[in-house]
Amino acid sequence: MTITAVIASPLSAAVVDRIVASAPADVEVVYRPDLVPPPRYTCDHTGDPAFRRTPEQEAEWRGILRNAEITWDFPESGGDGPAELTPNLKWVQGTSAGVGARVRRLGLQDRPEITVTTASGIHARPLAEYVFGALLAHVKHVRHLAAQQRSHHWERFTPDSLDGKTMVLIGPGRIGREVARLAKAFDMTVLALARDSDPGRAVDLGVDRVFTRDQLHGMLGQADVVVLCAPQTPETDDIMGAAAFAALRPGTIFVNIGRGTLVDEDALLAALRDGRVGFAVLDVFRQEPLPADSPFWDEPNVQVSPHSVANAANEYDKIADIFIANLARYVDGRTDEMTPRYSREKGY
Amino acid sequence: MTITAVIASPLSAAVVDRIVASAPADVEVVYRPDLVPPPRYTCDHTGDPAFRRTPEQEAEWRGILRNAEITWDFPESGGDGPAELTPNLKWVQGTSAGVGARVRRLGLQDRPEITVTTASGIHARPLAEYVFGALLAHVKHVRHLAAQQRSHHWERFTPDSLDGKTMVLIGPGRIGREVARLAKAFDMTVLALARDSDPGRAVDLGVDRVFTRDQLHGMLGQADVVVLCAPQTPETDDIMGAAAFAALRPGTIFVNIGRGTLVDEDALLAALRDGRVGFAVLDVFRQEPLPADSPFWDEPNVQVSPHSVANAANEYDKIADIFIANLARYVDGRTDEMTPRYSREKGY
Repeated sequence: MTITAVIASPLSAAVVDRIVASAPADVEVVYRPDLVPPPRYTCDHTGDPAFRRTPEQEAEWRGILRNAEITWDFPESGGDGPAELTPNLKWVQGTSAGVGARVRRLGLQDRPEITVTTASGIHARPLAEYVFGALLAHVKHVRHLAAQQRSHHWERFTPDSLDGKTMVLIGPGRIGREVARLAKAFDMTVLALARDSDPGRAVDLGVDRVFTRDQLHGMLGQADVVVLCAPQTPETDDIMGAAAFAALRPGTIFVNIGRGTLVDEDALLAALRDGRVGFAVLDVFRQEPLPADSPFWDEPNVQVSPHSVANAANEYDKIADIFIANLARYVDGRTDEMTPRYSREKGY
Repeated sequence: MTITAVIASPLSAAVVDRIVASAPADVEVVYRPDLVPPPRYTCDHTGDPAFRRTPEQEAEWRGILRNAEITWDFPESGGDGPAELTPNLKWVQGTSAGVGARVRRLGLQDRPEITVTTASGIHARPLAEYVFGALLAHVKHVRHLAAQQRSHHWERFTPDSLDGKTMVLIGPGRIGREVARLAKAFDMTVLALARDSDPGRAVDLGVDRVFTRDQLHGMLGQADVVVLCAPQTPETDDIMGAAAFAALRPGTIFVNIGRGTLVDEDALLAALRDGRVGFAVLDVFRQEPLPADSPFWDEPNVQVSPHSVANAANEYDKIADIFIANLARYVDGRTDEMTPRYSREKGY
């Protein structure tokens, strides 16, 4: 019997061709670029929100999804989700690392018969690269250099280094471990928040020491740099509140590449203004797109990016690698080996 | 008999104290902050060029140097060098990685009885950090982000990555090897210029492949990024001339943290203007300070820094570590073990 796999978000023709070519014989891969929103930028998974299917297209799209046993990205249309659109769904391959909020919103949390795999890991490298680009530009005084260059002014100076500084990592998942790996390459000390403070856990994570949630503020007080890369769960909501910011030493560099919900944004603004946070690198916000009147845009020591630095020009290809490997396992019945997978217990 | 070690360039009191405390009993460490130029910035080794000793101070300074068997930095005053100032000199501890030009200018090239140790290695980490800060900021489109931020404009986009790109390294000494180490941490392919093309040499250097000088242009044609960190020697003079730039693919990133003499600056400007060089990161120039009317200041895809990115706020301490270790070896007569040392044969 043929297994239908529907690609439900924009993808490049070259990558679709590669998936089709590598799919097992009993899998039919369906991609209809005319029925999904057009991509707005390289490797866009969402597509233009202004896109609307005609009633005929909508009927055709729903007909295709009805047969889908596998979808690349989550099936959603006009307020309907998997329950209404994909009665035969057994596996969703997500295209982002953090799918928990979407799983819960689409009612998949209580449907353990549907396997959800993620693109966790794919985003780790681009995010880690971005973090180190921002940290290095800051410690090397690149803004000062640019100002000197504009005024044709040559004056020797002494930059700072990352070497020897301490990073506190909140959320040592795949992304956090990749950030930690690079931090160790730069000879930073890395402290991480973990479920238990077993030293063996630190070794597993590739960090110097782990701390538990009740030790969070003590750990934050040792940081030169704080990097948030935790998923959005009830447990991480507002983890950086006023008391957490108050625990920081003056001038701490603060990076959020996790989710906006991790941060009390008023407390962050206050910490920027009293100097406890010396530089903030923010890719995610409570409200996205960041409203045009948000104070973060003009705050002098803030670097804003539009929830984009997980993206990379080779991303479709990297997710396709995961999907192709999982498709082979799925067809062989080796569902347990499909990876990386969403855990309903952990919520990420 | 007491050995006199004179600190001949500016140093911080804390680091002087540490050297004095750790010096063997028969070594007298002399530091006279009033007789050396005051530092202009953290860890400045040269000091203010406007500084002038009074005739009395000059006489006192020359009297101190006359007894020096060891100097921290090269003894120079009013056009005189070691030949005139330090008749008893046996060892100079340089404070920079590249001392060859100074050794030759001061007539020490032909005096093998004087050991010259360098600060080679000290500058490797800060330089490598700066290189990756600049490369990452460029591939992550940080200028584009800053422009979007200024206009409060949220528009998702796809940055590029270093992951998978090819770096060509010219000058795989201590600095080059440190740059290569970090490039491998970012999963770049690293090609290096070497004296021979033995694959074992590539392993020693921590790079993927080595090329000889006659293969230079072929190697340059594979580069996404070219990093120059070669010393100033007759052999490296103008190594990046018009033909070398012509070998590059369009958009190549070009970094010079070596010496200005490595580059034909007119050829570099032409390559920037025809797009063969997409971004240039320049810390060193043929004429320093870079003249106020140099075209590099205003060239749109150039990042100028004032020969400063080898500096780091912890630098005096790191050179003191080298000096203290070498001082113990010197006093024990283990001169051969003093490291890193200037090689009169290699010229660096």
